[in-house]
Amino acid sequence: AINPERLWDELMETAQIGGNEKGGICRLTLTDLDRQVRDWFRARCEGLGMTVTVDDMGVQYARRAGQRNDIPPIALGSHLDTQPTGGKFDGCLGVLGALEAVRTLVEAGYETYAPIEIINWTNEEGSRFAPAMVASGVFAGAFTREHAAGIKDVEGITMGDALETIGYRGAEPCGQHPLTAFFELHIEQGPLLEAEDKQVGVVTGVQGMRWYEVRVTGQSAHTGATPMHLRKNALTGAARLMDRIEHIAHAHAPLAVGSVGFVEVKPNSRNVVPGEVFFTVDFRHPEASVLDQMEQLLVASLGEICDPLKLSTRMEKIWDNPPVRFDAECIEAVRYGIQQSGFTSRDIVSGAGHDAAYVSRVAPTTMIFVPCREGISHNEAEYSSKEQCAAGAQVLMQAILEYDRR
Amino acid sequence: AINPERLWDELMETAQIGGNEKGGICRLTLTDLDRQVRDWFRARCEGLGMTVTVDDMGVQYARRAGQRNDIPPIALGSHLDTQPTGGKFDGCLGVLGALEAVRTLVEAGYETYAPIEIINWTNEEGSRFAPAMVASGVFAGAFTREHAAGIKDVEGITMGDALETIGYRGAEPCGQHPLTAFFELHIEQGPLLEAEDKQVGVVTGVQGMRWYEVRVTGQSAHTGATPMHLRKNALTGAARLMDRIEHIAHAHAPLAVGSVGFVEVKPNSRNVVPGEVFFTVDFRHPEASVLDQMEQLLVASLGEICDPLKLSTRMEKIWDNPPVRFDAECIEAVRYGIQQSGFTSRDIVSGAGHDAAYVSRVAPTTMIFVPCREGISHNEAEYSSKEQCAAGAQVLMQAILEYDRR
Ligand SMILES: NC(=O)NCCC(=O)O
Ligand SMILES: NC(=O)NCCC(=O)O
Repeated sequence: AINPERLWDELMETAQIGGNEKGGICRLTLTDLDRQVRDWFRARCEGLGMTVTVDDMGVQYARRAGQRNDIPPIALGSHLDTQPTGGKFDGCLGVLGALEAVRTLVEAGYETYAPIEIINWTNEEGSRFAPAMVASGVFAGAFTREHAAGIKDVEGITMGDALETIGYRGAEPCGQHPLTAFFELHIEQGPLLEAEDKQVGVVTGVQGMRWYEVRVTGQSAHTGATPMHLRKNALTGAARLMDRIEHIAHAHAPLAVGSVGFVEVKPNSRNVVPGEVFFTVDFRHPEASVLDQMEQLLVASLGEICDPLKLSTRMEKIWDNPPVRFDAECIEAVRYGIQQSGFTSRDIVSGAGHDAAYVSRVAPTTMIFVPCREGISHNEAEYSSKEQCAAGAQVLMQAILEYDRR
Repeated sequence: AINPERLWDELMETAQIGGNEKGGICRLTLTDLDRQVRDWFRARCEGLGMTVTVDDMGVQYARRAGQRNDIPPIALGSHLDTQPTGGKFDGCLGVLGALEAVRTLVEAGYETYAPIEIINWTNEEGSRFAPAMVASGVFAGAFTREHAAGIKDVEGITMGDALETIGYRGAEPCGQHPLTAFFELHIEQGPLLEAEDKQVGVVTGVQGMRWYEVRVTGQSAHTGATPMHLRKNALTGAARLMDRIEHIAHAHAPLAVGSVGFVEVKPNSRNVVPGEVFFTVDFRHPEASVLDQMEQLLVASLGEICDPLKLSTRMEKIWDNPPVRFDAECIEAVRYGIQQSGFTSRDIVSGAGHDAAYVSRVAPTTMIFVPCREGISHNEAEYSSKEQCAAGAQVLMQAILEYDRR
């Protein structure tokens, strides 16, 4: 059995890297803080006798040999980057839970049939470089390496340059790394498990998600001297679009969600009528056909709202991530692990995107969820208890052992 | 008569300091660019034999002696700071037009009765440090020197520190500098003069203006895993408030204006439901009683819109600048100048705030407007022609000479 204390201590230890007074972590991908936690992770894995390599997207692979080293590894892991207002568990639990699982095997002297790899994926969050899950996307062939390396943050720094800067641009081209299977442990980030008092979620798939970028252009003008009827106020249009997006999501609730997360107003000065507003839209639903409907409503609202305001708009769909169904055999291995440990569970479709969603395109994959308090995530208040974290890591270990035995 | 070419050349020369490829200027107050244009201004004035002093708000006073130097000076001027997307004329025309007027007197060997001073006011724009017209406000007793020195920009730098940094915190305490009168030349920044094809505006006063800061607080959460009905989306509340502000202004149009110019979303990440939004409101109207009504509607909308969304709000009125009526004798001097030069004109109430509005509390004051293309200002496209600029400077010179004679 895995050691709950040790896992908890490492969660709290790494939470110091980028930790803040609100109890959360701000450790954006490919910053120096990300480098620190990567270095920490490599040292721990090497301490367990594992070999750690890095690909050219900065993905870390920590390998423990098996009885047969000519077959691809069974992999487990998640990500160590966070949101600007991230919590201590999103991503970290998946990597540190994997570390604890492998350490338990090492200490027990248990030799698996296949090699085992712990993976730390780069830029899962998509907050600094959009979209999310970029490295696992490259791994699975959803994006080219060139495209990914060229993505810019708001300061204009590319992902490729950021990788160089922190010394994590490896030689191995991302996407040439076969896996026998991939298991990702994660907090639910939603309220369902807690509401039904279940200890573990058997994740059967991930809902579809689409990201859009909208630019509304008017004309900046003096707030005091420009009469209302002569304005081309880009913020008025943007605010009405935001309200409309809320309505589109509600109209397709309870399964649909729709959000504007990022907004940039130009010139952003108190006495200037905004001449331009840029904002992002995030639509999700388990069915692609519903996402199509939501998208149509969004497209129609642009002209409907902005034409009368004499504003022009430009919208781009920058990400279309279809719904995913996980692998039946991997799911069976998770069910077996839950049964062995005697935990309560339920099936669940993930509301959040995860690296596992991309990896599932190229290897049998599934996920394990544990509850988090009030379903709060992407917030410093994010919390799962020591016991909840331990339950996840325990099921993770048993699932990969079961998969390995088969 | 003033020299239109010389004035135009100096407008274009100083426009290089902070000038951008869009033809505008970004020369925020108390930055190093502001220091450069201040140094340039001092050198030009000293070249005309004037004595330049600085007070502890960084206000520059360039003095030319008169026949009687025991009486306070007749002052003219404006400001050299700009908006982030400022044009080449807002403020600069008032200072450089004054410089051209005085240079014309110097070259003609004309000795005034009172001393003449050109003033360059600090932080007129209010974009870096809110509110606007801070130094003239201190000059007129509307703010204390301590309060003004403590105002912070978004980076947390105080006005006092910024003054030190660029070497413009003078010894003379701001507000101990009596004036016989003050005349400010400015572009209209609105569409009226152009629409009626008038060359000069006789400014009879300035409308009232109030600035508010609103903070909407909800809870940041995961955009994918948080169902719509469980959200506390601060941006949804803020967007609806922005729409309401637009409606409040329209309901009191054509004289009322209302704008949200500055918005900050937290954490501003594409896949995080915004937990907090901060934004500013600018309401203006020539009558204080109408501003009271608009304010009441704004206050009522906070709870009406945000309570059902489970959001809390905090609003602060950070600036209340009552309507201003300018001095009858100063206005007469301007009318005389217009008549002498044969320009067409109309009376006008300023929509924008100006240093003259504060100065009018402590000295007889008025302003002279010239048209700007399409009324566009606080925008790089801001434009007044060489002839329009020259007309303003000519009337300015004749107005102060007339006032001086009386
Ligand atoms: N798990 C997680 O928060 N992923 C980020 C990608 C997304 O779902 O927005
Ligand atoms: N003239 C001018 O643009 N002043 C700035 C203050 C304001 O009116 O907002």
